[in-house]
Amino acid sequence: MKGIFITFEGPDGAGKTTQLKKLAFALQEEGWSAVVTREPGGTMISDKIREILLSPDHVEMSDQAEVLLYAASRAQHVRELIAPSLNRGEIVLCDRFVDASIAYQAYGLGVEERVVRSVNEFATGGLVPDRTYMLDIPVEESRHRLLTRSGAELTPELDRIEQKELEYHRRVREGFLRIAQAEPHRVRLLDAAGSEEVLAGAILSDVKLLLERCL
Amino acid sequence: MKGIFITFEGPDGAGKTTQLKKLAFALQEEGWSAVVTREPGGTMISDKIREILLSPDHVEMSDQAEVLLYAASRAQHVRELIAPSLNRGEIVLCDRFVDASIAYQAYGLGVEERVVRSVNEFATGGLVPDRTYMLDIPVEESRHRLLTRSGAELTPELDRIEQKELEYHRRVREGFLRIAQAEPHRVRLLDAAGSEEVLAGAILSDVKLLLERCL
Repeated sequence: MKGIFITFEGPDGAGKTTQLKKLAFALQEEGWSAVVTREPGGTMISDKIREILLSPDHVEMSDQAEVLLYAASRAQHVRELIAPSLNRGEIVLCDRFVDASIAYQAYGLGVEERVVRSVNEFATGGLVPDRTYMLDIPVEESRHRLLTRSGAELTPELDRIEQKELEYHRRVREGFLRIAQAEPHRVRLLDAAGSEEVLAGAILSDVKLLLERCL
Repeated sequence: MKGIFITFEGPDGAGKTTQLKKLAFALQEEGWSAVVTREPGGTMISDKIREILLSPDHVEMSDQAEVLLYAASRAQHVRELIAPSLNRGEIVLCDRFVDASIAYQAYGLGVEERVVRSVNEFATGGLVPDRTYMLDIPVEESRHRLLTRSGAELTPELDRIEQKELEYHRRVREGFLRIAQAEPHRVRLLDAAGSEEVLAGAILSDVKLLLERCL
């Protein structure tokens, strides 16, 4: 494929979405355009799957159904949006991808990592990001950010995944760190506890190097 | 597990649902109770997945997303309803199960059978029916039944799967026949073109033998 596929990973509250938007804006300022998308979601079918996955009513969802629904959403997203965009030579910025399933479902829920990987290999047809920015933040800090996200509100509504206990989120963070360790060429591990602007600058510099090399 | 798990398979229009209901009623007449369910569906989450799968609007659905959504619906169905019922010693009658994914997605869509099997093995935790009644009918006949199903209406609304072309439905039938051939101990292949009552009688006799042996 001709384009560049960049993903943002890390726990909720680490600032992925903010950094992704800052990068899209900075690229635009320099004359580049980017397709900005997110998981679960990105297409009409994937958005409907997202509703099922994140509804706080679905506490009875089995771990296997969760793995398969994320993979189904991703399969549609890759086929309908990501792969066609890359084939046209576009830069695609995606909020979460396969790494999130490894961290949340294999490390977090305890589903066998080998199975999560093979289900996702089928879903994506083996598509791997050219670059992944993994925003790391201590669990207590990301929880604090989530709970105060909406400013004045004291009890913002958390989705089904966000509601899970601290120990689960610790395992998820551990999963992200292991992925970063295992794939240093693809994954840039970044400290998300510091200044947003410094982080955005570091990401933009790295993307520019990537663009020079790839496009 | 202590109960008995019986599935009905075959193309739409073969009379699966009718036979399943007749069996449930006949069992009840003889003092047995049965849990009657269907796929995709059977639980609240699975029913929401069913809506996504069958909506005639979703013509853009990728083959991979279809395989994964059926498996997700099945995973939830097994964990929330089928396995707990079997563990309580119940008779479970289910309209479609894994065989339908092999026939429709592997044979019909052309997704690798090995992959469809392994995704479904993960979804079901390896649960296999004790008995499967496979209702066979020529494709032309099942199409005719489907199109005249609603009696007076001349153009009943077909769902996304039912709308597919005849050649697809021929491959699906071929898939069902191959499964019956490969697993003669589990699968009873039945001619669904004949009398409903004769068919119902044959199924009931076979189920009684199964009950004597298993319960």
